[in-house]
Amino acid sequence: MTSTLAIGNYKPGDRAALSDAFDAHVIPGPDAIRALDETLRKGFTAVAYAGGQPFGAAEMELLSNLGVIANYGVGYDAIDVDAAAARGIRVTNTPDVLNDDVADLAIAMWLMQGREMRAAEAHVRSGDWAAKGPVPLNRKLSGGTAGIMGLGRIGRDIAHRLAAFKMDIHYFARSEKDTPDWTYHDDPVALARAVDYLFVALVGGPETEKFVSRDVIAALGTNGVVINISRGSVIDEAALLDALESGTIAGAGLDVFVGEPDVDPRFLNLQNVVLQPHQGSATVQTRAAMAKLQRDNIAAFLKGEDLLTPVV
Amino acid sequence: MTSTLAIGNYKPGDRAALSDAFDAHVIPGPDAIRALDETLRKGFTAVAYAGGQPFGAAEMELLSNLGVIANYGVGYDAIDVDAAAARGIRVTNTPDVLNDDVADLAIAMWLMQGREMRAAEAHVRSGDWAAKGPVPLNRKLSGGTAGIMGLGRIGRDIAHRLAAFKMDIHYFARSEKDTPDWTYHDDPVALARAVDYLFVALVGGPETEKFVSRDVIAALGTNGVVINISRGSVIDEAALLDALESGTIAGAGLDVFVGEPDVDPRFLNLQNVVLQPHQGSATVQTRAAMAKLQRDNIAAFLKGEDLLTPVV
Repeated sequence: MTSTLAIGNYKPGDRAALSDAFDAHVIPGPDAIRALDETLRKGFTAVAYAGGQPFGAAEMELLSNLGVIANYGVGYDAIDVDAAAARGIRVTNTPDVLNDDVADLAIAMWLMQGREMRAAEAHVRSGDWAAKGPVPLNRKLSGGTAGIMGLGRIGRDIAHRLAAFKMDIHYFARSEKDTPDWTYHDDPVALARAVDYLFVALVGGPETEKFVSRDVIAALGTNGVVINISRGSVIDEAALLDALESGTIAGAGLDVFVGEPDVDPRFLNLQNVVLQPHQGSATVQTRAAMAKLQRDNIAAFLKGEDLLTPVV
Repeated sequence: MTSTLAIGNYKPGDRAALSDAFDAHVIPGPDAIRALDETLRKGFTAVAYAGGQPFGAAEMELLSNLGVIANYGVGYDAIDVDAAAARGIRVTNTPDVLNDDVADLAIAMWLMQGREMRAAEAHVRSGDWAAKGPVPLNRKLSGGTAGIMGLGRIGRDIAHRLAAFKMDIHYFARSEKDTPDWTYHDDPVALARAVDYLFVALVGGPETEKFVSRDVIAALGTNGVVINISRGSVIDEAALLDALESGTIAGAGLDVFVGEPDVDPRFLNLQNVVLQPHQGSATVQTRAAMAKLQRDNIAAFLKGEDLLTPVV
């Protein structure tokens, strides 16, 4: 009998790998757990999770012998880790292997927004360049001021890239870190006041909900741009939309949204934003590395070995 | 009587500055020189050039007391410098002040092309993300191999940025340079064979015409991407189009084109290219710096002082 339940819309290759490695039983989401035969449910000791939807105490109760939830992704805010810890269930995630891709996309959205590349591309493809002349001048990016909100692994990878663009780097974190000559702020509003470009690299979850508040957004000022590659929940999205619509900030580059993939339609009318479909880690190479790390954590658990990247 | 002839479609601010500084006479292009009164023509000792079209011996003959041509831009391939030198006419350009912007755009096109951001943005804005699910996986960029064709000031600024993306840097130049641990190739085909991403940062003009040849493009291979921020003339554009259409290379990011702003319509059908309207230096800050350096060169000439950034 199989010991591994895989939950999520796995791509064929990852699904096949889970089957090969663990003879995993695959269901599309946590809602489908209840319909499984009770004997089957009791047999599961590991969950390979890529569900997206919340996975909490109710789901854990249905899997009475569960010992590990191996999350596909670095952000595990869908999983109630307190409920897991209370039941002695371990949780793992897939950190580090996706840092480069996510940092690349953050820099890409910053450049694409600031240099107005979407409008410029349309200008070429429509024939307007030949018919009407050059695009309006946009803004110089290198040499400016950037703030990193949340200086974890991904935040640092963003900052190191920005340094090569000769940016003056500021950051907010719960405590001052050992960094190159980057400037620490113990208050998010002070960080936003000090910079033009705010890169949001916070961990998701209830503690950081609307952490990029209306006040933080206002403090950025009319040259301000928000880049978010973490979670939609960390920004007060209504406040951001108000600021983007009224021009109290200059723009945004967003890979994540509240309620995604349903994006607030107010975003779709804006020309000062770059909108990406949560593709931060969506490269062939990185998704393969994430899937392998998820499987390696399950294999370690099943063999009674130390987990590779435990959260709890 | 004014001593300065300004040639080009100057924006109102730059035009006003040329008038304020030199009481400059402004014409849209070199074709309009002949129609000027001969006395007026004889009075000109300086040309502020932003014409784009060729400025050669015929134009110089019409300005018999010309002493300097101050070009707006780092690339002065429109000006026949040999003809100028033969007449004792000095030529200046505007180097360095635009390096950051041009390097930024090179990196931006590389990221936007590789992470398929134009298609991804359309996926969000059309509602397809919610209706049809995620975009296909694209490719990891950081940690790859990049080649710089032409390691001048802009090429170096591109390479320093790429190093922060953990890229392995290779380059071609006429001679080996003093660099960090970058790999020199004395042959463009060998460079192309060694890398996936080829950043073209050559000087324009007859000597580099079609320098990125059919053989160089073929040597890149099916993972190859060409990024060009220099001049359209340096690439064999027909060979590039063949390779892009047939998939013998993966894509391109192009800010410059043969015959621009008329872009070969074959480009417009391609989805594996990023097309930008020669906006490398087109930021408010940098264009102001370029215009100031152009004026400072003219002022130095008129006062009999050393030119700031002479070409010949």
